[in-house]
Amino acid sequence: MVNNGLEGVVAATTRLSHVDGERGELVIGGFPVGELAAHATFEETIWLLWHGDLPSARQLEVFRAELAAERALPFATASLLRESAQRDVDPMDALRMAAGTISLAADHALAIVARFPTIVATFWRLRTGAEPLAPRRDLGHAANFLYMLSGDVPDPEKVRGLETYLNTVVDHGLNASTFTARVITSTGSDLVSAVVGALGALKGPLHGGAPGPALDMVFEIRDASRAEAILRQKIQSGERLMGFGHRVYKVRDPRADVLAQAAERMYTRAGDMSLYTLARSVEATALRLLEEYKPGRRLQTNVEFYTALLLHGLGLDASLFTPTFAISRVSGWIAHAFEQREANRIIRPQSEYWGPRNRRWMPLSARIDTGVEPVKQTV
Amino acid sequence: MVNNGLEGVVAATTRLSHVDGERGELVIGGFPVGELAAHATFEETIWLLWHGDLPSARQLEVFRAELAAERALPFATASLLRESAQRDVDPMDALRMAAGTISLAADHALAIVARFPTIVATFWRLRTGAEPLAPRRDLGHAANFLYMLSGDVPDPEKVRGLETYLNTVVDHGLNASTFTARVITSTGSDLVSAVVGALGALKGPLHGGAPGPALDMVFEIRDASRAEAILRQKIQSGERLMGFGHRVYKVRDPRADVLAQAAERMYTRAGDMSLYTLARSVEATALRLLEEYKPGRRLQTNVEFYTALLLHGLGLDASLFTPTFAISRVSGWIAHAFEQREANRIIRPQSEYWGPRNRRWMPLSARIDTGVEPVKQTV
Repeated sequence: MVNNGLEGVVAATTRLSHVDGERGELVIGGFPVGELAAHATFEETIWLLWHGDLPSARQLEVFRAELAAERALPFATASLLRESAQRDVDPMDALRMAAGTISLAADHALAIVARFPTIVATFWRLRTGAEPLAPRRDLGHAANFLYMLSGDVPDPEKVRGLETYLNTVVDHGLNASTFTARVITSTGSDLVSAVVGALGALKGPLHGGAPGPALDMVFEIRDASRAEAILRQKIQSGERLMGFGHRVYKVRDPRADVLAQAAERMYTRAGDMSLYTLARSVEATALRLLEEYKPGRRLQTNVEFYTALLLHGLGLDASLFTPTFAISRVSGWIAHAFEQREANRIIRPQSEYWGPRNRRWMPLSARIDTGVEPVKQTV
Repeated sequence: MVNNGLEGVVAATTRLSHVDGERGELVIGGFPVGELAAHATFEETIWLLWHGDLPSARQLEVFRAELAAERALPFATASLLRESAQRDVDPMDALRMAAGTISLAADHALAIVARFPTIVATFWRLRTGAEPLAPRRDLGHAANFLYMLSGDVPDPEKVRGLETYLNTVVDHGLNASTFTARVITSTGSDLVSAVVGALGALKGPLHGGAPGPALDMVFEIRDASRAEAILRQKIQSGERLMGFGHRVYKVRDPRADVLAQAAERMYTRAGDMSLYTLARSVEATALRLLEEYKPGRRLQTNVEFYTALLLHGLGLDASLFTPTFAISRVSGWIAHAFEQREANRIIRPQSEYWGPRNRRWMPLSARIDTGVEPVKQTV
């Protein structure tokens, strides 16, 4: 009767995305993920999720301009990021704190989406000892993010690579962060509250994942000729191969293909092709060995493997991978919040109680000291 | 198949609290709510939830001291509250933003619980043009909160009244905010993230409720002799009587009795007894008329009615009612986070997709303009 992971419980109907783990299919806003990711600018993808259709040329122009106009951060947010950088706060905590302060000046969807890249880039520059840059209205959402990180207007191939990534991970059914956003919205609360809650969930290692380690493994292998020996050793010692396997997908994660193609294109035209070749070789060896050691487990390359390769190729530090994921996914969270509001019902499951029921009060002097100390139990 | 409120779905087992809506019973940490609320200091209640038993005299002393030592706010939190007050931000948004910044300096349970009253009182004083006060270590959790609001060491009857309130609302099954905290915790995320998400859910009018309006009705009636005419008029015009009816309780909310007794005691010894008498008279008239107009609906006085009366008697402005609720409930959220971690499984329900599946990309020039404008659809 107790279903503490809510597996198989259908908690919402949605027109935003559809995950078919058995067939390895992902539909976003009606498009197969590959069809959407390769063509759309990220602004078009956001519009698609929020409005159900691709924008016209006029709508897109207005939307890009209005989004670009909302990028700047209020003073309190910037000074909070400065203090966070000084204290070397986790980048996802910094993003959560700063995103929370969007309520100081605005609480609408455009402002939230527009400010995420500014927050992440501002924190990154402060943490690496550089001064933050003002956003540029003439650049698109993806290009402006890369500009604010590095100070250089990015190569169009890199912008295309980042847009493909942002499109690919913008929505993915009722994952834990999206579900968090819907639960918060279901109480009638505001968008900033929903998004901040979702960021808290995305930070968890069981959800946001850790795309960094997948690439660390490639770096460790260094040369394709060493892949088989190192991977055999890892599998035999019981180590989990980062970047392979997914709770939902039992065949190849469709996002992995899209990101692999995007990585190939970007590395070919604007990057270090040898890293790409090495990664593909490591992947092929890992899949062959996983089938040899764990036949029938159907472990496939997941989205983290190519996320790491692609984002690394864009010049992003591994600590920016999850915040960049959030820069995309926040548009999906907001789309789900809109959808939740359309046909709302407060989300309130039940719990089963297993404790005592009729305890009587006991005076302080009569109680037994269990020896438990407060601090140890509360961290 | 779709259960979008998750009604009747059991998503957790818990030893923290048990709500029996049909019988009108609430068990907290094994105690009937009335047994616990009337006896415990709030520090004892927190310990009970976090550790499963009442603390010994030694444990309580250490716990009180360690909690009291964590009350001060870091500079960034204080300046964020100053800016929030200047911009006249909603008090729950201010609490959410400030609570989020606890991560700057600490992320453990003691710090979170200790700082909530400081945040609420600091914001209140700034918003009313007074300078914030430093917390006092020699006062308990409840007394220090009242002190930081007013600058006066409170009457012990008022402290007892506030402690009874805090004990009464500290936990209440898997409500939407507690569930939010558990979903976020289930990803492996931290306590501050869980608490901040829960605050976002509590802010929603369908959850945190609005204890203010219940008292407004009493003020509007002003004199017991006017109650029947005014209430009849409200009911006949289809207005909902604030403070009556609850989604879960079909008999009298057990918390209403506890708070009614606490209010009676406090008003008798340290307040304006005429307001208490008026409120009881309004309640009696409302219940009689509700039974007359809506027989069989079993509408009963809910926790909001006596919350408003009690907190008003403590000198709290209505805008502080929901933040004060949060000052109590945060201990429950943290207890649920601990419990979630003990037997964790990521909470990830499913969604049902009803959109199209095989859309093909369409070039910008071929798209139809729906006339939708970005801003209107996104606020």
